[in-house]
Amino acid sequence: MFVLSSPSGAGKSTICRNLLRDEPELEMSVSVTTRKRRGNEVDGTDYRFISEREFIGIQKADGLLESAEVHGNYYGTPREPVEQAMAEGRDMLFDIDYQGALQLFEKARTDVVSVFILPPSMEELRSRLERRAEDAPEVIDQRLQNSRKEIEHWGEYDFVVINNDLDKAFSEVSAILTAERLRRDRRPGLHDFVGTLLK
Amino acid sequence: MFVLSSPSGAGKSTICRNLLRDEPELEMSVSVTTRKRRGNEVDGTDYRFISEREFIGIQKADGLLESAEVHGNYYGTPREPVEQAMAEGRDMLFDIDYQGALQLFEKARTDVVSVFILPPSMEELRSRLERRAEDAPEVIDQRLQNSRKEIEHWGEYDFVVINNDLDKAFSEVSAILTAERLRRDRRPGLHDFVGTLLK
Repeated sequence: MFVLSSPSGAGKSTICRNLLRDEPELEMSVSVTTRKRRGNEVDGTDYRFISEREFIGIQKADGLLESAEVHGNYYGTPREPVEQAMAEGRDMLFDIDYQGALQLFEKARTDVVSVFILPPSMEELRSRLERRAEDAPEVIDQRLQNSRKEIEHWGEYDFVVINNDLDKAFSEVSAILTAERLRRDRRPGLHDFVGTLLK
Repeated sequence: MFVLSSPSGAGKSTICRNLLRDEPELEMSVSVTTRKRRGNEVDGTDYRFISEREFIGIQKADGLLESAEVHGNYYGTPREPVEQAMAEGRDMLFDIDYQGALQLFEKARTDVVSVFILPPSMEELRSRLERRAEDAPEVIDQRLQNSRKEIEHWGEYDFVVINNDLDKAFSEVSAILTAERLRRDRRPGLHDFVGTLLK
């Protein structure tokens, strides 16, 4: 499980998109949410957009690995696709906030590699949110307030990347994924390989 | 401390050279050795070539972080340049064998990131040693014997890279270095950065 968190506007979504483009063996965990779809979002790709009634139904059936409420909307990670991917040895990418991440850490600390993406400054974060031009000024103010809360949890992640330059930040996140896949203890097949080598 | 080990002929020296070329902030730990200089080696760059008497003198003065005997020759890592680099926050690259690596692991486990480079096959390893054409056939046989002993210790390293293709192996080792530098607990300066961010 490869977890990326960051305040909105810090570049996390673009980095996720690029990772999925370059890493065919990486699969996105698509969260469910009760919030409204934004203009450029695709249902089933960015999120599965569901009603509050549906959300509560899935949650009651223990069908969520983690869930959180942000800006008055519910978000959650469906359990089944993740458990299936893990069982088949595939890597899962999670674009979730600190509330969700902390729940995942508790449930599966050893299987989780977590990266927090920091903006270079709060001014830059505000101007990125303004350029996105999707939210009213008071919503941007609230997002920035929530960003501060999100940033306060940077210390609970394994890795930290500062997104000053998107290409550099992406290549750093990509290096973390590459490196963590090369950890000896994540490669049970190596025992057989070395056995054959020394035969 | 970034430690690379591998049997001779698995490409470790080339990977080290390329890392030093691309990473100006990485410094090579130059070992001392009592073995004879090979044709293409530079004294003070590849090794510091010293006499057995000198070696024993340094060792007796507790001037070595690790030392080993291989093929009847002595090798060792001078303590002072490493301690100076660490104190100044620079990264040190170690091209040492498992005997030296295990001594380093014991002394500084948390500061060490270790990578073992495996050859794709023993046949390939033999043919690389033969192409190098620097050793007599019986020396190559002995090197291969020692390679097997070296490979048996792959399980004591943090990361494993299989050198099937030199460019790929290099970029993997490079990704490990990049990623490990991004670990939160190796970046004490981040506390101040986030403090300024949230000010």
